[in-house]
Amino acid sequence: MRILIVGASGTIGTKITEALGRKHEIIRAGRNGADVSVDITSPDSIAAMYEAIGCVDAVINASGGANFKAIPELTPELNEKGIQSKLKGQVNLVLLGQEYVNDGGSFTLTTGVMMDDPIPMGASAAMANGGVKAFVKAAAIEMPRGIRINCVSPNIAEESWERLGEKFAGFTPVPAQKVARAYVKSAEGAQTGQNYEVYH
Amino acid sequence: MRILIVGASGTIGTKITEALGRKHEIIRAGRNGADVSVDITSPDSIAAMYEAIGCVDAVINASGGANFKAIPELTPELNEKGIQSKLKGQVNLVLLGQEYVNDGGSFTLTTGVMMDDPIPMGASAAMANGGVKAFVKAAAIEMPRGIRINCVSPNIAEESWERLGEKFAGFTPVPAQKVARAYVKSAEGAQTGQNYEVYH
Repeated sequence: MRILIVGASGTIGTKITEALGRKHEIIRAGRNGADVSVDITSPDSIAAMYEAIGCVDAVINASGGANFKAIPELTPELNEKGIQSKLKGQVNLVLLGQEYVNDGGSFTLTTGVMMDDPIPMGASAAMANGGVKAFVKAAAIEMPRGIRINCVSPNIAEESWERLGEKFAGFTPVPAQKVARAYVKSAEGAQTGQNYEVYH
Repeated sequence: MRILIVGASGTIGTKITEALGRKHEIIRAGRNGADVSVDITSPDSIAAMYEAIGCVDAVINASGGANFKAIPELTPELNEKGIQSKLKGQVNLVLLGQEYVNDGGSFTLTTGVMMDDPIPMGASAAMANGGVKAFVKAAAIEMPRGIRINCVSPNIAEESWERLGEKFAGFTPVPAQKVARAYVKSAEGAQTGQNYEVYH
């Protein structure tokens, strides 16, 4: 397969690229993508990326961010990062990419554990994750030409624990390599409309 | 209690107003609200509404829309209504309203069955619903001054069946009056972080 991985150089993206790179042709995308650049907060940038790379069999996104702020400090403006990046960025990769995915291909997006197991300052990210999860479940019933769509909801990765662990008090991190397997299941498997929880 | 109901004149809003109006002071808001006007897609309009009405004990939102389009026809532009109205409109009612809700008060937002039981053309609405549900669950753990936050996920209402039933093939609609009870539970009860499903 020919697989586009957006966020290929991130903690999880690196492991997805390793796992799928053994058998498939990988196009690595990101803000400073090794093969193609994309800013997922810009529909124009997403459209330009697809035009540059042409058709693929799978699109995987492991990018997207949100601001971490407690509710009393969270403003509509600070919430906008989660809206533009983690939510709309991912949804637009699907809406603008559907004509570039071959028959029977797939999309795999990324949600995250804090929508199910809330953490302080995580409401904006949770909002984006919950939006993506519900979008995936609903979009799956009417994707064209047998295209499938799933998402992966990772717990915090062991590799991110030193940097982010303080935000996840009492969580047990999972290896990024284990998280990557869920993306492999989505791209190489046959399921659709799923949110793969990699929490343990 | 002094209760603000946004979307008070809608199918469900009318029944919420009836149910809570027996015991409480109700402020009816909406685009052409009987007591105060608000356009929830505009943070400025939300801020002006709160400034006009002052402090309340509960904020209930039964408004917000999204475009109904199949995925092959759904564009980033058409998805924007769900983002601005049903998702950000509701989240911003909380972010901008938290200082206007009295100690121990509550917010109650509205999601909807299509995030759990997808229908054709419902992906944009599902996305917004899923975002609101996850936001509510996460925000509940850090609302200030004992303020609670819940949402209600209604099935299609019997009263909307003639107008919208074609989109909900095989669904069994529920009376709007039954849906309204979940808002009463949220405002008069003591739970927080819940998504009350009124599907049966």
